[in-house]
Amino acid sequence: MAKLDYTNGIELLDGARSVAVCGHVNPDGDCLGSALALTLGLRSLGYEVTPLLATREQPKLYDFLASYGDFMPACEYHARPDVFILVDVPSAARAGDGEHVFKRAKKTLVIDHHQGDASFADVGYVDSTAAAAGMLVWDFLEQAGAEMTADIATCCYTALVTDTGRFQFQNADSRALMAAADMAAAGALPSEVARYVYQRRSWAALQLEALVVRRLELLFDGKLALSWACEADFEELGASKEDGDSLIDAIRQLDGVEIAVMLREQGPVVRGSIRSKTDRDVAAIAAQMNGGGHKAAAGFTIHGKLPEARAIVEGLVAESFAEQPKASMTTDAEVTATTAFTRIREDML
Amino acid sequence: MAKLDYTNGIELLDGARSVAVCGHVNPDGDCLGSALALTLGLRSLGYEVTPLLATREQPKLYDFLASYGDFMPACEYHARPDVFILVDVPSAARAGDGEHVFKRAKKTLVIDHHQGDASFADVGYVDSTAAAAGMLVWDFLEQAGAEMTADIATCCYTALVTDTGRFQFQNADSRALMAAADMAAAGALPSEVARYVYQRRSWAALQLEALVVRRLELLFDGKLALSWACEADFEELGASKEDGDSLIDAIRQLDGVEIAVMLREQGPVVRGSIRSKTDRDVAAIAAQMNGGGHKAAAGFTIHGKLPEARAIVEGLVAESFAEQPKASMTTDAEVTATTAFTRIREDML
Repeated sequence: MAKLDYTNGIELLDGARSVAVCGHVNPDGDCLGSALALTLGLRSLGYEVTPLLATREQPKLYDFLASYGDFMPACEYHARPDVFILVDVPSAARAGDGEHVFKRAKKTLVIDHHQGDASFADVGYVDSTAAAAGMLVWDFLEQAGAEMTADIATCCYTALVTDTGRFQFQNADSRALMAAADMAAAGALPSEVARYVYQRRSWAALQLEALVVRRLELLFDGKLALSWACEADFEELGASKEDGDSLIDAIRQLDGVEIAVMLREQGPVVRGSIRSKTDRDVAAIAAQMNGGGHKAAAGFTIHGKLPEARAIVEGLVAESFAEQPKASMTTDAEVTATTAFTRIREDML
Repeated sequence: MAKLDYTNGIELLDGARSVAVCGHVNPDGDCLGSALALTLGLRSLGYEVTPLLATREQPKLYDFLASYGDFMPACEYHARPDVFILVDVPSAARAGDGEHVFKRAKKTLVIDHHQGDASFADVGYVDSTAAAAGMLVWDFLEQAGAEMTADIATCCYTALVTDTGRFQFQNADSRALMAAADMAAAGALPSEVARYVYQRRSWAALQLEALVVRRLELLFDGKLALSWACEADFEELGASKEDGDSLIDAIRQLDGVEIAVMLREQGPVVRGSIRSKTDRDVAAIAAQMNGGGHKAAAGFTIHGKLPEARAIVEGLVAESFAEQPKASMTTDAEVTATTAFTRIREDML
């Protein structure tokens, strides 16, 4: 797919002074990096830009990005911006507290790469073939005439490297790698970004992962790998919620596994992450628990304790193994995009 | 740096019929992928190509590469090839059993990206600014007029992704990403390669890593992270030597660490891997134990048991912390490239 033509979006900014930018709830590298790239780029073009957080959550992981300290919770932003830009966001609701800003903004712009359309905004760009929203932001700023600085490149590269899982997910295609090369040419340092994002793990996160690996069980002739953690584990190790986000990746690495499941008991619920290493559609499995996500990476929440949750998951996985793998690339139609996105765990693909 | 002009190397092949290709001892993804890409590409041009192994070692990890079954140990190859190509090899000695083939070959060609010169061969190409030898092989085959198939692209991409550590090492620059984009455009599937290389870990490898993480010690105010494994661990878990290769990466991930050390007791010796997360030069530390490597990744062998090895390493690291970090990018001059390469562990950068 060729680069989008952002003329309408750039024209929308004509005459504007105040701009607010916001990503989605459970913020990841793509929405945070994209929002900051827009902030930096549009500021260089003379706009007054405020980057907003969909909730108060601001992961420490991305604190190396330029102007990271400028983020403010959307609930504390009471102005009526001339233009409000939602980035990496498929619906106004997904912007959390940003939805109120969206409603009162004079003009709205959406730049996104999720499945869906952007008709809820005045001008919208959706390209679901882009590996990251950061790629679209990169093109948008270039077309808008912003100076493509090393800081902007680093923000967009971070968006791209995290949303492709270090170029390991199925969205890591030639176009994504070419965009990464452009960003590196503009000053992004892949090794530095990797050091910040992947080489700053906490002691607790490492020990939690070791614990989960020791508990790992193989079921269905090794096709299902399952492990779990409970609140007591987190407390004992002094681990944060964020420390648990990559546990599913540790399980997923195992040879021969077709489906990987990580269960985390949190109060009255068990949150599950589920991954497919084959064509098997785990979003369809998650959908049966009112969860959702992508074919290869989904999430769900079960009201109950670990043993019950485990029994439910095992039953559904057994059904899935009894069926032929589905050829379809789409998420179960019964799960709307909104349901899926609001239910999906923050550690998804 | 612009692409090299491979005219002389291509001319060297003129009139040749039999070609043998060989990488280095302790074969990695770069030398194996590069050797197979050359095999496939030159076969398509009509040559009879035999890919050789420097020793009998052929890691299962790369068994997904096309024609991987065609590799034969160099010690079993008794012919006198018209052209012998050493790839990812900085000296004939580093080709292990391939050195004998090198000596009797009619003509010799070297394609490499290590520091050094290729004057030991009839024609040689060394570009130490290339992230992987596979990038040079890609350009060589293109200039030679080979059909750049998906299989060749996959071999070269595998070379590149492994030698850059999934685009996380300092050699992961714009040029490397651009080459990766070209290879993906020619049919290499980054997600598939990642699945084979990084998502087929053995049960034993995961459990071994968990054990090493549990044993992890932080010294010097958290600046040194150190762990260890002994033969009994490998036996108990049924782990192979290969399963231990990535243990240092597990340690290196920890936040705040400047130097990471992994010690493995193997019979009468302790083999150490050492990594720097800052500007501190660990090759200089390794050199004091007659080891070597790169500034950020080095290895060494100590004759003795774990407690002695540990005391030696701790002492040298203490000295390093007492000094100012060195600004130099070069390896300690006392360690020649050959010494370094023969002593360096196979799990190096």
